[in-house]
Amino acid sequence: MRLGDIGEMGLIKLLSKDTIVSPAGVRVGIGDDTAVLELGEDRLLLATVDMLLEGEHFLPGTMPSKALGHKALAVNLSDIAAMGGVARHALVAIGIPADREVEEIEAIYAGMKELARQHGVNIVGGDTVHSPQGLVLSITVLGEVEEKNLTLRSAAQVGDKILVTGDLGKSQAGLTLLLAKGALPLPAAVVREAEEAHYYPQPRLREIRALLATGAVRAVNDVSDGLAKDLGEIAESSGVGAELWPEEIPISTSTRAVAAAAGGDPLAYALYGGEDFELLFTAAPGGVEALLACGKREGIPLKVIGEVKPAAAGLTLRWRDGRIQGLRPGGWDHFQRQGEDR
Amino acid sequence: MRLGDIGEMGLIKLLSKDTIVSPAGVRVGIGDDTAVLELGEDRLLLATVDMLLEGEHFLPGTMPSKALGHKALAVNLSDIAAMGGVARHALVAIGIPADREVEEIEAIYAGMKELARQHGVNIVGGDTVHSPQGLVLSITVLGEVEEKNLTLRSAAQVGDKILVTGDLGKSQAGLTLLLAKGALPLPAAVVREAEEAHYYPQPRLREIRALLATGAVRAVNDVSDGLAKDLGEIAESSGVGAELWPEEIPISTSTRAVAAAAGGDPLAYALYGGEDFELLFTAAPGGVEALLACGKREGIPLKVIGEVKPAAAGLTLRWRDGRIQGLRPGGWDHFQRQGEDR
Repeated sequence: MRLGDIGEMGLIKLLSKDTIVSPAGVRVGIGDDTAVLELGEDRLLLATVDMLLEGEHFLPGTMPSKALGHKALAVNLSDIAAMGGVARHALVAIGIPADREVEEIEAIYAGMKELARQHGVNIVGGDTVHSPQGLVLSITVLGEVEEKNLTLRSAAQVGDKILVTGDLGKSQAGLTLLLAKGALPLPAAVVREAEEAHYYPQPRLREIRALLATGAVRAVNDVSDGLAKDLGEIAESSGVGAELWPEEIPISTSTRAVAAAAGGDPLAYALYGGEDFELLFTAAPGGVEALLACGKREGIPLKVIGEVKPAAAGLTLRWRDGRIQGLRPGGWDHFQRQGEDR
Repeated sequence: MRLGDIGEMGLIKLLSKDTIVSPAGVRVGIGDDTAVLELGEDRLLLATVDMLLEGEHFLPGTMPSKALGHKALAVNLSDIAAMGGVARHALVAIGIPADREVEEIEAIYAGMKELARQHGVNIVGGDTVHSPQGLVLSITVLGEVEEKNLTLRSAAQVGDKILVTGDLGKSQAGLTLLLAKGALPLPAAVVREAEEAHYYPQPRLREIRALLATGAVRAVNDVSDGLAKDLGEIAESSGVGAELWPEEIPISTSTRAVAAAAGGDPLAYALYGGEDFELLFTAAPGGVEALLACGKREGIPLKVIGEVKPAAAGLTLRWRDGRIQGLRPGGWDHFQRQGEDR
């Protein structure tokens, strides 16, 4: 079905089905000038937006539409997780080329709605416009957080341990596979795992709330641009330095297999790859035990990968044999790409 | 200065200057994973997003950058006004082609910031990405409204009078002039007025709050897609019909002059032109006098232009000589353009 057949209102009606999954607090969703929302008292409002452009963040025809919808929302949910919050509502602005099939747009929304449902997030509004070039997706997510659970990047203290959930470099492994277009001979299970990580990253909303209950979490960032850049943001905001222990950085067997096949360095995938959407955080040394116990109890993979140092120490890698080297800054910069590791 | 010279962080630092104009209630603005906001108790949160794409909503090189920034924000502020609310915070997602000058982006932000300052709106976050095609601007605005002041489209009642602020068709007049590229011989003052209306529409935030104090305002919509479509939305949401009195629809001398020079119908400009961002609303007949008095006192041009009818009556134009004709639906549809009046 072509977009021109159903028009703007037809499309909006189609897409606004099943958008309210947590009706409490939603006075008006899609259909008036703005969404009207009730938010709890004694809570802070979190608001974040991310824009994905075809040809830049994804290539035409390479990404399943459902994965695109999933990822566009996941990026934002991950930002709410990084603030210690609970995601509540989303607004979806989408620019659609005239030649696209309605089914493609529905599939994008299906990916969004499935992830939204998993996290109790309502789609309460948006804007649906014609795009003269590629697809454009701009999603805004609103969340809430209690004062005591707000986790700013600026809260790291010298002596804190640095922890990370899950494993890193997996999205870069998936991207590497996609760009190789089947040229890398790897077991099907490895391919599936790497592509899944790239297409369907899981925001750590449940995980951060469980970890916060320990009272030990300090500064948090999500791994969106690569460990090096995201740790750099915590360090800069907190006015501290940091050392990472490269052998401790969790990298999966699949990611290592892809890197090996592609002639890449798995550590570089982890440090500069980005889009893993794991949680990177610091914790007082005395709280680490409680955190690891919580991780075990709740099924949250958790690793201590370094330590917060005074600002003068800068950012370093400290190898097990005692070697220390400067951590080259890197990660994704939208305007300066030369000389970066992706 | 080229974007590549300063990079993403350099650009964000540059653009995030002077973004917080009402610091009360802003815990964290630009610079962490999300904005962190305090909202007053006993208030409802309003959230809206609009996306503008180069080549679709504006053409490369035809719109001053400052006007583009102004308009992209104004569209959203107008939505908050249409809900009876007070605008508080904005998130700005922008996609920028690599060859643009930093100064152009700064000018877009200057237009936004000037309008934001006028209405006490903070820019608390956003996303800055590279666009492989044209400029993309997606702005989310958050506002607040007291329960009693919430003005939904669905609140119109049969017998209500229909009112509008300001005058209509002026943005279409400005667009007509721009598309004619100087080929229409018109006085400089007319040209200036029409272009100003098209480039720098004023959201009616102050006006709606003054009018709400009368207690007489019922359903509200802003004139974004053209009077016909925007009235149709109120009628559909409220389950009513409506008649418009065409001779009463306010159309300025400048708009009439442009229409005459272009061989167009000024009434069609008003009905189908859109982007005037005036307030279209209904009011109990007993409240009209108070509203007109309020308009006079506060310097808000206000006209009664029709009446709400039962649903079966549909949407009509009722001329002074008694003729009634069906109001052809129209206005801006992003995907079905054929046969429309613009």
